[in-house]
Amino acid sequence: MQTNTPLLTDLYQLTMAAGYWKAGHARQEAVFHLFFRRLPFAGGYAVAAGLADAVEWLKGFKFEAGDLEYLATLQGRDQRPLFEPGFLDYLGGLHWECDVDAVPEGTVVFPHEPLLRVRGPVIQGQLAETALLNIINFQTLIATKAARVCEAAAGDEVMEFGLRRAQGPFGAVMASRAAFIGGATSTSNVLAGRVHGIPVRGTHAHSWVMSFDTEQEAFAAYAEALPNNCIFLVDTFDTLQGVRHAAEIGLRLRAAGHEMVGIRLDSGDLAWLSIEARRILDEAGLDKAVIVASNDLDEHLIESLKHQGARINVWGVGTQMVTGGDQPALGGVYKLGAVRKTDGTWQSKIKISEQSAKTSNPGIQQVRRFTFNGEFRGDAIYDELHGCGDPVEIVHPADPTRLKTTPEGATHEDLLQPVFRAGELVGRLPTLVESQRRCREQLRHLHPTIKRLLHPHEYPAGLEHGLAQQKARMIQENRHL
Amino acid sequence: MQTNTPLLTDLYQLTMAAGYWKAGHARQEAVFHLFFRRLPFAGGYAVAAGLADAVEWLKGFKFEAGDLEYLATLQGRDQRPLFEPGFLDYLGGLHWECDVDAVPEGTVVFPHEPLLRVRGPVIQGQLAETALLNIINFQTLIATKAARVCEAAAGDEVMEFGLRRAQGPFGAVMASRAAFIGGATSTSNVLAGRVHGIPVRGTHAHSWVMSFDTEQEAFAAYAEALPNNCIFLVDTFDTLQGVRHAAEIGLRLRAAGHEMVGIRLDSGDLAWLSIEARRILDEAGLDKAVIVASNDLDEHLIESLKHQGARINVWGVGTQMVTGGDQPALGGVYKLGAVRKTDGTWQSKIKISEQSAKTSNPGIQQVRRFTFNGEFRGDAIYDELHGCGDPVEIVHPADPTRLKTTPEGATHEDLLQPVFRAGELVGRLPTLVESQRRCREQLRHLHPTIKRLLHPHEYPAGLEHGLAQQKARMIQENRHL
Repeated sequence: MQTNTPLLTDLYQLTMAAGYWKAGHARQEAVFHLFFRRLPFAGGYAVAAGLADAVEWLKGFKFEAGDLEYLATLQGRDQRPLFEPGFLDYLGGLHWECDVDAVPEGTVVFPHEPLLRVRGPVIQGQLAETALLNIINFQTLIATKAARVCEAAAGDEVMEFGLRRAQGPFGAVMASRAAFIGGATSTSNVLAGRVHGIPVRGTHAHSWVMSFDTEQEAFAAYAEALPNNCIFLVDTFDTLQGVRHAAEIGLRLRAAGHEMVGIRLDSGDLAWLSIEARRILDEAGLDKAVIVASNDLDEHLIESLKHQGARINVWGVGTQMVTGGDQPALGGVYKLGAVRKTDGTWQSKIKISEQSAKTSNPGIQQVRRFTFNGEFRGDAIYDELHGCGDPVEIVHPADPTRLKTTPEGATHEDLLQPVFRAGELVGRLPTLVESQRRCREQLRHLHPTIKRLLHPHEYPAGLEHGLAQQKARMIQENRHL
Repeated sequence: MQTNTPLLTDLYQLTMAAGYWKAGHARQEAVFHLFFRRLPFAGGYAVAAGLADAVEWLKGFKFEAGDLEYLATLQGRDQRPLFEPGFLDYLGGLHWECDVDAVPEGTVVFPHEPLLRVRGPVIQGQLAETALLNIINFQTLIATKAARVCEAAAGDEVMEFGLRRAQGPFGAVMASRAAFIGGATSTSNVLAGRVHGIPVRGTHAHSWVMSFDTEQEAFAAYAEALPNNCIFLVDTFDTLQGVRHAAEIGLRLRAAGHEMVGIRLDSGDLAWLSIEARRILDEAGLDKAVIVASNDLDEHLIESLKHQGARINVWGVGTQMVTGGDQPALGGVYKLGAVRKTDGTWQSKIKISEQSAKTSNPGIQQVRRFTFNGEFRGDAIYDELHGCGDPVEIVHPADPTRLKTTPEGATHEDLLQPVFRAGELVGRLPTLVESQRRCREQLRHLHPTIKRLLHPHEYPAGLEHGLAQQKARMIQENRHL
């Protein structure tokens, strides 16, 4: 199934497109922003990811004949066609013409900051909404989870092996990609290895051991076949007995000129078992053999095992990393910020809501990040038409009485960078390894209290003072339209 | 990206395959069972789904030249190739030869029951594990969630519109498919509509309203363009004002010979707003106009809104339905049950664990379901080599002292049905509509207490008495291998 198609969208994008076309303002210029309102996992930061896949989707933005034939079969509630033939012809002739600016993958981001901005004919911005959200919501969620897991692992290797529990095959490959950006060092997913060049890792399962008469036979046969890839899974029958069997085969491997990589624990009390396993391996002279642990791990369990002095060197994280675990979706949204009037001037737009958190921000937004003494000190969302001061007063997005002024002498950079201009890709996208490196680098600039797993300190990210005032005025004006 | 490839697997399946090949028993026959240990959502049942996609994947089970070239680049810890050229040649010649039996999509299923069984050369059963788990775990999770949501909606229409929050594009399409099996009547996902023939629905978003100067103008323009598809989203500025504007345009539509379908509420107090909206619409003479509600709904919120007397006719469910919400992964596993010895006899296999819930069941398993007076009364997992009595004593999977005897005179059917024989597809797979109908039909045979959302009654599903005894013996024998 091809997913790089404009049919990967909600039907309402197409019915709205039909509406814009009919009303004669399909080509009216508009600006949309993709952002989320709340940090995932009750954490202190998120890690932007998914842009490269979003770019691939935008490059495939073309309605094919078969797509249009399918759309022509759709009916309204009166059984008559939903779409006029003229509109479908118009769709057939569409090609991507918008400007897209986006935050590079691996960047730490905060609520209300646009991760991506689309500017161009309203109909095109609208038709891209759903796919952009799908791709960026999911990968940002997973990169963030992976970053949290890797922070908890504090420099230990983290292997992602969630394929079997991931949400579909493609979801799995995307999750492997995003987990790598967030800091995972390898994946079990061979397809993700082939498609994205991520290092792949894996040794054997319980079924390998079960298919032999004894555990020793099973380990010996594995060592015979793959002497340079021996991590023995020791908990098929009795874990510590399994460790002794692994040590036995490890010494035999050494005599044959190879070195056992280590063992894996996949059940039971990982703190206690890892300490006992370490002792058995060390006593056998296998002090270089690593201990891999897995079993529905997440950042909280890893942090707890570390506090308990577990002797685990490598963490295998599956389900929790590739699905988000406690939070399986990032609630990113895509909102209209401004439209261009016939006289060429821009008119800011706002959506009010009964729930004030659902009220959108107006303008053509950019995010300015201030750094002082090597530390990120605040992000200001500002309207490009009005600019941003320095220092700037940042207004808390939920509480206009909370202000933060950026330090004098801070350096700054704007986070949204050009990706498409008039529909053409500009510049080169970073490689996956570069995005992983950027993520690691970015996390170093965050104060440790912001990276804390529980009740983190809130990073100052909000509206530039002028934009906050404009928003307040617009809420008053629009409340009863 | 093509996902119907044997590379969609964990690396350890390939290293084990290399091990089987090297040890000379690649073609040893083995039986694997795919099952889950715990019902999702703390519910009383699950709905099997994903088989058709699993079949598609199995039909694509062929290593292509490029796959083998990629595998040849993988290295062990000593930087030497992981796989011998002879093994890669062997992979290149593999084609699917196994027998597969599976529970039809839309069937209600319970813990430890095999949803799918693979019997054939151990290496092939092993290489299929990860993809089968990925596909069936996810779709079974989502079909179950959808069934719960639809039960809560008690016959009301349920629209799935989770694309933007789903885990990747492909995950979204699979989720739309599984949600349909579980009872959703339509999707917003146009690609899922095209690929699977699911009815698609959608009208307009807040951005449509925001792009006009006033809400009235926006509704009027929409009605002009798509008079047969009018569900006005009324909460862009002030919800009840929005309902009045919608009613205004609804009357204008009627004067022009069309009928407004309804309105949609997407924020605020849905119970109160729907009651007020109903009053406004009725007073305007628009008593046929439906009220659609959305806003991060799930089965619990729908049940609660119904108890509050909300006047909602159609439920739009997104994130919670397509990701599983409170549980984003079904913990399905795939375990070896038996291997065939060189003398042709079958040897049952078991995996013991420090965690007794992780101990697997032995044998070549089938599931027999007993029905009495139109009600499902118990499922017995039995070993096909030993058969199943009638009536039969069913032993609770976690507590061998809990027994349940099936009623005298009950009818029964075996749930696992042939799908592949010697690698060839047998019979016809049901259509999606047939699977949806099967699900609805199956749920009718479950006692209401089992379908309750909170603390449901436990359905009697467990091991046939003889198999339970065999398992107990094997645990004793294998504990210290």
